[in-house]
Amino acid sequence: MEKIPYKIYLNENEIPKQWYNVRADMKNKPAPLLNPGTLKPMTLEELSGVFCSELAKQELDDTTPYIDIPQEIRDFYKMYRPSPLVRAYCLEKALDTPAKIYYKFEGNNTSGSHKLNSAIAQAYYAKKQGLKGVTTETGAGQWGTALSMACAYLGLDCKVFMVKCSYEQKPFRREVMRTYGADVTPSPSNTTDVGRKILAEHPDTTGSLGCAISEAVEVAVKSEGYRYVLGSVLAQVLLHQSVIGLEAKTAMDKYGIKPDMIIGCAGGGSNLGGLISPFMGEKLRGEADYEIVAVEPASCPSFTRGRYAYDFCDTGMVCPLAKMYSLGSSFIPSANHAGGLRYHGMSSVLSQLYDDGLMTARSVEQTAVFQAAEQFARIEGILPAPESSHAIRAAMDEAIRCKETGEEKTILFGLTGTGYFDMVAYQKFNDGEMSDYIPTDEDLKPGFDALPKVEL
Amino acid sequence: MEKIPYKIYLNENEIPKQWYNVRADMKNKPAPLLNPGTLKPMTLEELSGVFCSELAKQELDDTTPYIDIPQEIRDFYKMYRPSPLVRAYCLEKALDTPAKIYYKFEGNNTSGSHKLNSAIAQAYYAKKQGLKGVTTETGAGQWGTALSMACAYLGLDCKVFMVKCSYEQKPFRREVMRTYGADVTPSPSNTTDVGRKILAEHPDTTGSLGCAISEAVEVAVKSEGYRYVLGSVLAQVLLHQSVIGLEAKTAMDKYGIKPDMIIGCAGGGSNLGGLISPFMGEKLRGEADYEIVAVEPASCPSFTRGRYAYDFCDTGMVCPLAKMYSLGSSFIPSANHAGGLRYHGMSSVLSQLYDDGLMTARSVEQTAVFQAAEQFARIEGILPAPESSHAIRAAMDEAIRCKETGEEKTILFGLTGTGYFDMVAYQKFNDGEMSDYIPTDEDLKPGFDALPKVEL
Repeated sequence: MEKIPYKIYLNENEIPKQWYNVRADMKNKPAPLLNPGTLKPMTLEELSGVFCSELAKQELDDTTPYIDIPQEIRDFYKMYRPSPLVRAYCLEKALDTPAKIYYKFEGNNTSGSHKLNSAIAQAYYAKKQGLKGVTTETGAGQWGTALSMACAYLGLDCKVFMVKCSYEQKPFRREVMRTYGADVTPSPSNTTDVGRKILAEHPDTTGSLGCAISEAVEVAVKSEGYRYVLGSVLAQVLLHQSVIGLEAKTAMDKYGIKPDMIIGCAGGGSNLGGLISPFMGEKLRGEADYEIVAVEPASCPSFTRGRYAYDFCDTGMVCPLAKMYSLGSSFIPSANHAGGLRYHGMSSVLSQLYDDGLMTARSVEQTAVFQAAEQFARIEGILPAPESSHAIRAAMDEAIRCKETGEEKTILFGLTGTGYFDMVAYQKFNDGEMSDYIPTDEDLKPGFDALPKVEL
Repeated sequence: MEKIPYKIYLNENEIPKQWYNVRADMKNKPAPLLNPGTLKPMTLEELSGVFCSELAKQELDDTTPYIDIPQEIRDFYKMYRPSPLVRAYCLEKALDTPAKIYYKFEGNNTSGSHKLNSAIAQAYYAKKQGLKGVTTETGAGQWGTALSMACAYLGLDCKVFMVKCSYEQKPFRREVMRTYGADVTPSPSNTTDVGRKILAEHPDTTGSLGCAISEAVEVAVKSEGYRYVLGSVLAQVLLHQSVIGLEAKTAMDKYGIKPDMIIGCAGGGSNLGGLISPFMGEKLRGEADYEIVAVEPASCPSFTRGRYAYDFCDTGMVCPLAKMYSLGSSFIPSANHAGGLRYHGMSSVLSQLYDDGLMTARSVEQTAVFQAAEQFARIEGILPAPESSHAIRAAMDEAIRCKETGEEKTILFGLTGTGYFDMVAYQKFNDGEMSDYIPTDEDLKPGFDALPKVEL
């Protein structure tokens, strides 16, 4: 067997030609989105009022296993894909572990993360539909940057509502978006009805993804020629992000590598869902087995402490309801929480898979995450995003465990992005001022109490 | 002929095994460094007081064409090399030019630039010599970051003097260096004799590379187990950076591509020297011809308006003298100048090649540079460093000229890095507050008058 290189790069013609739709292989399909007015499943027509028609179709399609990637999107992918699958030789050596560690690195593009994979797809369908522009929300800023880049490339207008605390913590993220021609507003803002309402009730709020989504949806629905796009949670996003897993699998197959454990950080689930898709497909079809692990912040523990129930996707309750593991749409993570992964809910697709016992989840605390991040940066030469560092933490813990047990486990994790715009958080960590926060049951109670009483 | 992909990635085993020393093929050798006390050529022994012995040897070696790259350095290179050679299909289309544009992209590593290529080499030799640590200066911060990364990897102490105006403009650069364990001091500082002297004479100075070099050298010379390392200008740095050109040439040869014009931005000359080395070698040996173009800021025009003379490498005049195109060691670029490329002199190797007519130089103004940067970011999806954008500007100008003349010229330029830590400058540009500055002849006179009267 050929020695496995540090970085496995596929050829350009090995960029996937089709996305893989894991829902097609699920026996228990994810529950449908519900119309917040009628509490009936959203129809294609209803969804098309919010999303581009083609994306609405993808959102509803839980039977087609493979969906063609339009050539224009593949051409854009060629600017930064295939992304490398990296063998973490240096980390293995530093940890003195018999485990074999691989990571799929999605950070080598200016958006700094995997978000670009879905941004270009969503922008493309908006452009094809003849729209003027799109609106969206962004938390840590990676999605907003990605969407700005995609829109600049296609000549679409781009309006971004950025969670206020991120907007203030990350002024340079805003400047990157502006450089790509986007219009960026801190959320909640006075520019929307829902924003004004939230501000009236909570004048000191630092914002949340739930608020920002409500504002972005309001603007999209009220503006001629605009639609709303979302960077995570939705089934369509997981579909687009399947390029991550498909490439990873092709690269591993080429070298005869079979992962035992696949680890991904999870906020809304876009990266994790994308990374695991083809592996989960094999598992669902009974062709192979993998340990699949979601890692989330202890400060925003939707999988590990949330309820599996129908909930609003946004704070303003203007969006469709989704059945998902949720902390309640009013949940806002503690201000001491530094990174992304701050959404109150979780992809319906992943929620169903998790509920069916096809994957597990664990939560990690912030300080331990940044310790892993710093160690990884020094050893592997990449400064990771705080989000991605949740997966690093779990992968390192597993590799350390393997050292104790002697297991030669093959671990694959998703390194979703870089931390170049997270230096305020790193500074806090460098200065020893980072703290941990785990919500008490009391803290979580209001969110659970406010869950709508809906059953299909 | 196979279609040329968007990105040409070499295999790991195609990372160069030897650096190429262009001096070996030069008929007119670069003038030697002079001892500032005796004004005689620096001996190996004298140089070894400042630099690691192996690096001092490399500095003096102008006859050995190929020098082996130690395996440990090649292993580090594998973490981020080979870097891609990119065919700028999107840019060509947007400019509607018959020119074929390629760029060698060195920004896909956490230091954000090509500087890591020499940082790991210099840190390696320091470690091998059993030193405790190294000192250096950094302007825009790329070199300091690169050195911090290399030192963290090898377990060396790293002390960085950062030009004060950059230190203030780029707090996050400082944090990245701290994350990699480096000690960062704004220069001029009160921690050195030379810093105190400069501060006494110019209390309001925003600093310069020349000052920072003096401080770093002083600390290295006065501290047990430390040596000074430098990220540009020196012949040893150009030697290490030859990996850029060697990889570019291998990739081009694979696809039968021959560049007509090679363009690089030039501050101290490390990127330009590295990129052009193997091409210049062919030119020197009469095997091929290339148009080779250095691009520098109009606000710091050492090639285009400097004098070719012996000059001090640093403001404190403690370093060896070098014969180079220089604006005088007291020259400090106007504070409105945003990026790097702010050194008063230029690599002795490139200076000799330029003086011999083997390459040309042009200067570009800041606003035009950022216009090119923004356009490039939107079209090619990479937010470039301001430094690299000088080369982008020149490449775009040439491609636009080709459109007028119909020439199918093949252009290769060096995209040395990313602009993720330059958002203050981008913000200025986004806000329409960026200005240009071209020093008058009067502005340049004091620097020229202060040139030492030295001839060999």
